[in-house]
Amino acid sequence: MPNREIHLASRPQGWPTAENFRLVETAVPGAADGQLVVRNLVMSVDPYMRGRMNDVRSYVPPFRLDAPLDGGAVGEVVESRAAGFAPGDVVAHRLGWREYALLDAADARKVDPTLAPVNAYLSVLGMTGMTAYAGLLEVAGMRPGETVFVSAAAGAVGSLVGQIARLRGAARVVGSAGSPAKVARLRELGFDAAFDYHDAPVAESLAAAAPDGVDVYFDNVGGDHLEAAIGALRPHGRAAICGMIAQYNATEPPPGPRNLAMVIGKQLTLRGFLVLSYEHLREQFVQEMSGWLRDGRLRYDETVVDGLAQAPEAFIGLLRGENLGKMLVRL
Amino acid sequence: MPNREIHLASRPQGWPTAENFRLVETAVPGAADGQLVVRNLVMSVDPYMRGRMNDVRSYVPPFRLDAPLDGGAVGEVVESRAAGFAPGDVVAHRLGWREYALLDAADARKVDPTLAPVNAYLSVLGMTGMTAYAGLLEVAGMRPGETVFVSAAAGAVGSLVGQIARLRGAARVVGSAGSPAKVARLRELGFDAAFDYHDAPVAESLAAAAPDGVDVYFDNVGGDHLEAAIGALRPHGRAAICGMIAQYNATEPPPGPRNLAMVIGKQLTLRGFLVLSYEHLREQFVQEMSGWLRDGRLRYDETVVDGLAQAPEAFIGLLRGENLGKMLVRL
Repeated sequence: MPNREIHLASRPQGWPTAENFRLVETAVPGAADGQLVVRNLVMSVDPYMRGRMNDVRSYVPPFRLDAPLDGGAVGEVVESRAAGFAPGDVVAHRLGWREYALLDAADARKVDPTLAPVNAYLSVLGMTGMTAYAGLLEVAGMRPGETVFVSAAAGAVGSLVGQIARLRGAARVVGSAGSPAKVARLRELGFDAAFDYHDAPVAESLAAAAPDGVDVYFDNVGGDHLEAAIGALRPHGRAAICGMIAQYNATEPPPGPRNLAMVIGKQLTLRGFLVLSYEHLREQFVQEMSGWLRDGRLRYDETVVDGLAQAPEAFIGLLRGENLGKMLVRL
Repeated sequence: MPNREIHLASRPQGWPTAENFRLVETAVPGAADGQLVVRNLVMSVDPYMRGRMNDVRSYVPPFRLDAPLDGGAVGEVVESRAAGFAPGDVVAHRLGWREYALLDAADARKVDPTLAPVNAYLSVLGMTGMTAYAGLLEVAGMRPGETVFVSAAAGAVGSLVGQIARLRGAARVVGSAGSPAKVARLRELGFDAAFDYHDAPVAESLAAAAPDGVDVYFDNVGGDHLEAAIGALRPHGRAAICGMIAQYNATEPPPGPRNLAMVIGKQLTLRGFLVLSYEHLREQFVQEMSGWLRDGRLRYDETVVDGLAQAPEAFIGLLRGENLGKMLVRL
């Protein structure tokens, strides 16, 4: 039976293009002992994948050339040679970018498609949601009554950060985004203030949106957003550094914030994090988030593209900010 | 009785010069109820004072023009109208830059000149020592077995950071300094490796001195030292940001580290701090540090300049790195 997968054909220099990807026809493999074959239903494209396209050692190895990309996916088991899994089970796993995946059962996590749509396990109840939850509450240690600023706030992570902040008692939640439509959506989601970062220097817009400063900054962007946030953070403020999408395609290392010395006088903490270090929160996360979902207090947006062949364009569109909420590819 | 004090005559643009200071003759004041008159014996000059010479609101108000500077000092009470203080008592306080100081008794702290030389209460047992102790152990949370890098390591704070790290069980302590003599002194003080930052790019020297990376960076310098440290920090590494002397005299805001995005993948924490937030550690600090001093396990250097009139030059020399250890002015 034919399988199709997306390979990395060449490493992007700066912005990725369609030529960096190749659709390859292979065959669906058979499962060995302890393995599953999964027909993928939906896969995730995420900003962090851009870093793995560079030939640089990092917390995860770089993608290999002429080999399939990988990333979060949810699919249906079609063959199982592992105890506890049967055809028809729905599992979340890490081998996206292909129609059929051959997995060790240990790398698959069963999910309940009656509790939430399968897509949710890649967004609000998946790595995306965990990133927002752990970053805001554990890394930045947000407390009730604080003011929170989040960048890329209409994105998959940012839109959840703002809502979790409100649900956990933030006094004021401010978001930045890249279009009037996104800004309007943030207001619908309950952000107290939102601005389009194209309209004025970020520092000016942020000062207007949070005139008394902010206690917590959730950084998805880096660059002038981080500099503006350092300027706006109040004494003992914390920044959870989740991503710096503004510079993922830079070919020269960009200069850091010019006001970094402010971390001393204001006693700020800037802390980078990876969601994989916060697995100990998973149970609490699933319980609290699914409760909010059930009560209709937490909403999430998706931008869904159809077909594996469109996955490279979906990824490039994500880096351009063409998504509202989580960018997914339906297979 | 005549008094003399140093006023701020004008705000420095870039590097301070002698013209920014003025020696002013006044009269020794009399004490009101609850006050002391103190004859200062020794005063401190510190890098943070440069920031207060700018007309910028910060965690402490800027120095006023045509008014005396202030800062750490130790002196002898010559008149007391406060319970618990008598002429002859030696006190540490915050009104340096003058021969005689009029103090509220609440702002004076009695020190024991038989336990340690009075100078020590401005260095190893004073704010300088507390900065090193709190920054290394509490802000950066150094644990036994870790590798520590400290910049300006022959300075008052840095030389203590390195020694405290050794005494608290660091596996390896690396320091940078600005002259061969300072580097030699670091080796005498027990640093495992030390380099002159003029000899090569800091990142190269640091990689050679700590080939397996570092867990903790104590930053007194900023600039290329911070960038090199971010590059060398291991996963979950922490930087305590104490000062950025490299840029205190900059007239343009300097760009931040170009590799700041590394805080994400390595899950680094950069934390600025002010020693005034760590008063809760004072008892433990005094006990542990004076024990090490008594046992001869902790050494400290001083560069002492004579006479109030020399205080501006001492301060400018400090910014140029002309000191070994703590820079003090004997009055």
